[in-house]
Amino acid sequence: MSEAPYSPVELLPGDDAVVLLDQRELPAQEIYLRLTTVEEVARAIAEMAVRGAPAIGIAAAYGLVLAARKGADLVAAERLLAGTRPTAVNLFWALARMRRAAERAPRSALADVLAAEARAIHGEDRDACRRMGAVGAALVPDGSAVLTHCNAGALATGGYGTALGVLRAAHEAGKRIRVLANETRPYLQGARLTAWELSRLGMDVTVVTEGMDGHLFSRGEIDLVVVGADRVAANGDVANKIGTYGVACLARLHDRPFLVAAPWSTVDLACPDGGAIRIEERPATEVTEFRGVRLAPSGVPARHPAFDVTPARLVSAIVTERGLVRPVSAGELARVGGAADPG
Amino acid sequence: MSEAPYSPVELLPGDDAVVLLDQRELPAQEIYLRLTTVEEVARAIAEMAVRGAPAIGIAAAYGLVLAARKGADLVAAERLLAGTRPTAVNLFWALARMRRAAERAPRSALADVLAAEARAIHGEDRDACRRMGAVGAALVPDGSAVLTHCNAGALATGGYGTALGVLRAAHEAGKRIRVLANETRPYLQGARLTAWELSRLGMDVTVVTEGMDGHLFSRGEIDLVVVGADRVAANGDVANKIGTYGVACLARLHDRPFLVAAPWSTVDLACPDGGAIRIEERPATEVTEFRGVRLAPSGVPARHPAFDVTPARLVSAIVTERGLVRPVSAGELARVGGAADPG
Repeated sequence: MSEAPYSPVELLPGDDAVVLLDQRELPAQEIYLRLTTVEEVARAIAEMAVRGAPAIGIAAAYGLVLAARKGADLVAAERLLAGTRPTAVNLFWALARMRRAAERAPRSALADVLAAEARAIHGEDRDACRRMGAVGAALVPDGSAVLTHCNAGALATGGYGTALGVLRAAHEAGKRIRVLANETRPYLQGARLTAWELSRLGMDVTVVTEGMDGHLFSRGEIDLVVVGADRVAANGDVANKIGTYGVACLARLHDRPFLVAAPWSTVDLACPDGGAIRIEERPATEVTEFRGVRLAPSGVPARHPAFDVTPARLVSAIVTERGLVRPVSAGELARVGGAADPG
Repeated sequence: MSEAPYSPVELLPGDDAVVLLDQRELPAQEIYLRLTTVEEVARAIAEMAVRGAPAIGIAAAYGLVLAARKGADLVAAERLLAGTRPTAVNLFWALARMRRAAERAPRSALADVLAAEARAIHGEDRDACRRMGAVGAALVPDGSAVLTHCNAGALATGGYGTALGVLRAAHEAGKRIRVLANETRPYLQGARLTAWELSRLGMDVTVVTEGMDGHLFSRGEIDLVVVGADRVAANGDVANKIGTYGVACLARLHDRPFLVAAPWSTVDLACPDGGAIRIEERPATEVTEFRGVRLAPSGVPARHPAFDVTPARLVSAIVTERGLVRPVSAGELARVGGAADPG
């Protein structure tokens, strides 16, 4: 159960700088960005130097600490951060929690209180990942081949990972598992980040393209699917990286379990269902260009919805730090959420 | 009904050189390769300078002409060409047809007979595409959004295209259609080739990644699917570019027609079903690298099955130059094939 020797985001001692591992440069280079203003943090989130729903929330919380340290307008800082990416709810959850902490804080200690709150958000997420790992690993059979999509690892969280945390926990428990990582176009989080994380952990990982999933399912080469989430609606619908819904359809057609691992900070009980989740549209050039090389002819448009919604009926179970949500329904989500609620 | 101003493969007058449009360089550059030996043609096929089932067959036939012109061993030349790519049956169909022509030819006129036969194969494929266009266009409603996968256009055939021929014919008939082109990882035939062809024709084409298909189906943004084929088995199972099966699954789940356009040279009645089709495995580096840039960490393996099999039950109809195969079954394939067989 070793910690990863890297972290997507940290607040430096002294609370005056945030260090981000620039995920756009992985796996070729490990470049750490040192950010000292909330504007820099907001840009890093919008431009995906840091990504992954829990990591975005943590980065935003740290961004508010930088704003408070400089005596900046916290309302404006929150608005700036909230405008970076619309789909992952952890961003808004973390901002709301920081706002509540600020409201409670004595004015003289505002920056210190916010730094403590942001570090608590970070630490709780790391702990939640560990608990999800323990809960979810039981659902991963020894000897199984597991498909994952995008990156829901230590890089996407406070540490350890959600979907990859489940797989790490199974691996650490001595189970032999083979991971198939969808490369995850257009941003290649699977090929670049998931493959990087799992190979560093000594785990068996193979990259595939999304188009291969159907073929591999049809040949019995995938036993189950585990993915993360950017938002879980009150009825159990799951927003996650574009392509997730297609994987869920294939898993259902081939009668294989489809698991979602998400901390409770990703559950949005105020959102009735997936239809109410705003799907971020990102620049078409992220599809039509790769490092400045055009893939499609100049002038040809592309679509780039960055997320999709998988309806609850296609999700076999949701792994949370409060326990397993199965079957996935509004009632079961409320029960698991409420049972473990403090107070 | 204008011809495309480019051709994937031509035998020059004089029969001593084959000119190929190097599809690996599209859309950035239009580079024509001038090949004068069968070895060069075989390499161009293996390395995908020319690709697309009908175009591969035509290129191989022209390769045999070059061998015959040089007085080379035709059995060895055929073996060389047959070893380039295993899945598309048009290659083996064209080689067998050329062998029969050679066996009938007077020794003194061997090269001329083979040149005439190869040009006939090419011309018949062009004609077949036109007839498929006429047959298939009737199935494309005015105002519809059509998803296609890989490239089954003029570049993949003797000219005009199979799946894209159907869409061109609908467009030329005045129907307003919007084409969504799957980029088709890892080789990007959709982003590079389909987008290039359709935009040159003034058609409405938008590039999407395979992972977006499910999202677009779920939102009602895809009305039907039209793809080509590399081999159609006697029972109607269809081998085509990796990713096709996943699209067919999504079309079925969302109750949208899934059409295959294929000339009769792609139908392999000697192959009982999809299970008997050899699926080419190509180099993993085609997945993990892009123009020399590594996408996945060094040492991480990838899979690269280049084709998959879509079972007949997921295919709404097969458009051939002999007519429409619908429902897709062994009996209906035999009926359509036999009815139009000369003699």
